[in-house]
Amino acid sequence: MGVTKKILVIPGDGIGQEVTAWGKKVLETIAANYKHTFTFDEGMMGHVAIEATGDPLPEETLNKARQSDAILFGAIGHAKYDNDPTLKVRPEQGLLKIRKELGLYANLRPIKLFDDLLQASSIKPEILQGADILFFRELTGDVYFGEKKRSDDRATASDLMIYHKYEVERIARRAYEAARTRRKKLCSVDKANVLEASRLWREVVQEVAKEYPDVETEHMFIDNAAMQLIKDPKRFDVVVTGNLFGDILTDEASQIAGSMGMLASASVGDSVGFYEPIHGSAHDITGKGIANPLASMLSAALLLDISFGLKEESQRVIRAVDATLRQGFRTMDIANKHTPNDFVLGTDAMGTQVL
Amino acid sequence: MGVTKKILVIPGDGIGQEVTAWGKKVLETIAANYKHTFTFDEGMMGHVAIEATGDPLPEETLNKARQSDAILFGAIGHAKYDNDPTLKVRPEQGLLKIRKELGLYANLRPIKLFDDLLQASSIKPEILQGADILFFRELTGDVYFGEKKRSDDRATASDLMIYHKYEVERIARRAYEAARTRRKKLCSVDKANVLEASRLWREVVQEVAKEYPDVETEHMFIDNAAMQLIKDPKRFDVVVTGNLFGDILTDEASQIAGSMGMLASASVGDSVGFYEPIHGSAHDITGKGIANPLASMLSAALLLDISFGLKEESQRVIRAVDATLRQGFRTMDIANKHTPNDFVLGTDAMGTQVL
Ligand SMILES: CC(C)[C@H](C(=O)O)[C@@H](O)C(=O)O
Ligand SMILES: CC(C)[C@H](C(=O)O)[C@@H](O)C(=O)O
Repeated sequence: MGVTKKILVIPGDGIGQEVTAWGKKVLETIAANYKHTFTFDEGMMGHVAIEATGDPLPEETLNKARQSDAILFGAIGHAKYDNDPTLKVRPEQGLLKIRKELGLYANLRPIKLFDDLLQASSIKPEILQGADILFFRELTGDVYFGEKKRSDDRATASDLMIYHKYEVERIARRAYEAARTRRKKLCSVDKANVLEASRLWREVVQEVAKEYPDVETEHMFIDNAAMQLIKDPKRFDVVVTGNLFGDILTDEASQIAGSMGMLASASVGDSVGFYEPIHGSAHDITGKGIANPLASMLSAALLLDISFGLKEESQRVIRAVDATLRQGFRTMDIANKHTPNDFVLGTDAMGTQVL
Repeated sequence: MGVTKKILVIPGDGIGQEVTAWGKKVLETIAANYKHTFTFDEGMMGHVAIEATGDPLPEETLNKARQSDAILFGAIGHAKYDNDPTLKVRPEQGLLKIRKELGLYANLRPIKLFDDLLQASSIKPEILQGADILFFRELTGDVYFGEKKRSDDRATASDLMIYHKYEVERIARRAYEAARTRRKKLCSVDKANVLEASRLWREVVQEVAKEYPDVETEHMFIDNAAMQLIKDPKRFDVVVTGNLFGDILTDEASQIAGSMGMLASASVGDSVGFYEPIHGSAHDITGKGIANPLASMLSAALLLDISFGLKEESQRVIRAVDATLRQGFRTMDIANKHTPNDFVLGTDAMGTQVL
């Protein structure tokens, strides 16, 4: 009946430490209630790992990751590196390396507004209501992983934006499969009017599209997509795009969900799944106890659903978050100054409410 | 007293033909009223030029451009090429080439809401009110102009994202100079946590910043910027960024101005200035007579100000647009279904109102 699973928790940097504790508690609570056996291990990655070992992704963490059934991750990054672009060893290298090593090529980011957060967004309620987008961001290719160069005199720098056909094919297929179970619309975003990598992207998506005649395909340039996303979010169902454009669009899309602090993502490939909030390490509020734990808790919900197939358990978590919001509980980032009845809570009080 | 100037008009593709006629009429009217002598010539570029000559930027157009004092451009692009990524000769090559050939490295995009359009945006009025951003988009470098490659088997494609120190320096300086005349805040946008080209960008901006201690500098990652722009547009004053990120952010920012149909841009470098609406060729509404001519008319206003130093004349155009909006005249894209008193006009009727 109950399932037995090994979960690796990687809190990472900044508020990652504070919020991931709550994602983990969600998993513990679900295990207890539904008689599953989840065993937990912890790994280091990012700035904390550099400080402890000199390596943003220690071999030990990678080994643990390979042996686990799913990974719950927090956030990565530190102001020190942002302010000094010349540093060679950087926290983000840990995240990029684990994505590549585990073959996590598809990053799924569901964007859906919790009704009670309609007021928290900067976008008008009538524009938002009913918006429901599932992003597929390619995660192991693009300018993120192409060759990086710096000239000897340090005055010229470059990164290679590169895509291979098989990379586009596999993410496109996953996106089409998902579109079939939804509203049967797929929008592929590129910059094919300028970039060769995007022209390949478009050609391949056009080819894959033929296998899914029941899904309506649209191709959109990234500049237009960045605009349409705000102008008319309801026009989108499934969106598939490259690593860089996906990074930009999904952060932008967080405004559709009311706040970045609400959004979870799943990175999957051919083996273990990796779950993380889409927010970053947020140095500015680290240690203040005010970070929103909901994205980590919802990442746990995604983990239960996608990696373990525990749909009922996953829904239970989402319902708990929904109920908490309905009762007026808010963290600072989603509080609405125009609704004085909101109860503004810190990280731990909010997490406790949901549990 | 009056000045004598040569203006090259390049209507380009799609609605470019329809709206640029109105930008030109603005210039003719200003010339007549203020006793300036403007002589006009016309050039071909884009799909229309490919059809006529096989070349998206015929030598003749380039020569005329070099001999003119300013250029008023419309739009570029055609569905035929968007649907077929394998076509080798493409309209956009014309625009990219003229930017490069004329050394138009700084693209200025002022984003400011006309008060009467507060309702036309999908963003809440209280978030928008008072937003006033000036974008400096680098225009002749980045992944737009780096080497493009396609493997022989056509299964791998790449573009080189590349920046040289001098390219970053010169645009940063222009942006800082502008910030000095405004609210003295500059936000530089990059992806320095992942990209080497962005790390160079950040290093150079940090260096240039030292020359402008009176301007407050902020560095932001592009994903975060795409989010903050919608969440809190008022936090931005001058934004400086690379070619690709600038393309995305400025289109997104059009929602802050109510509509893309309102936004003008100026591309400048060391010689002649080039003025264009930020909207594209809009195949879907081409030939219907409903395109918004205001962005072209406001491009003419920018031209008068920046290339000819005719501030009073430029303001006169802006006031005329403002007055037209205040009287409730709208084109379809900026009409508000919730304000039944709006008069919805076609391109020509709207242009006539402003004149
Ligand atoms: C931290 C950074 C490397 C990362 C990315 O750009 O992929 C982050 O922004 C994300 O979206 O997961
Ligand atoms: C048409 C296209 C090449 C162009 C660009 O990407 O620069 C356009 O989107 C713009 O912003 O001027």
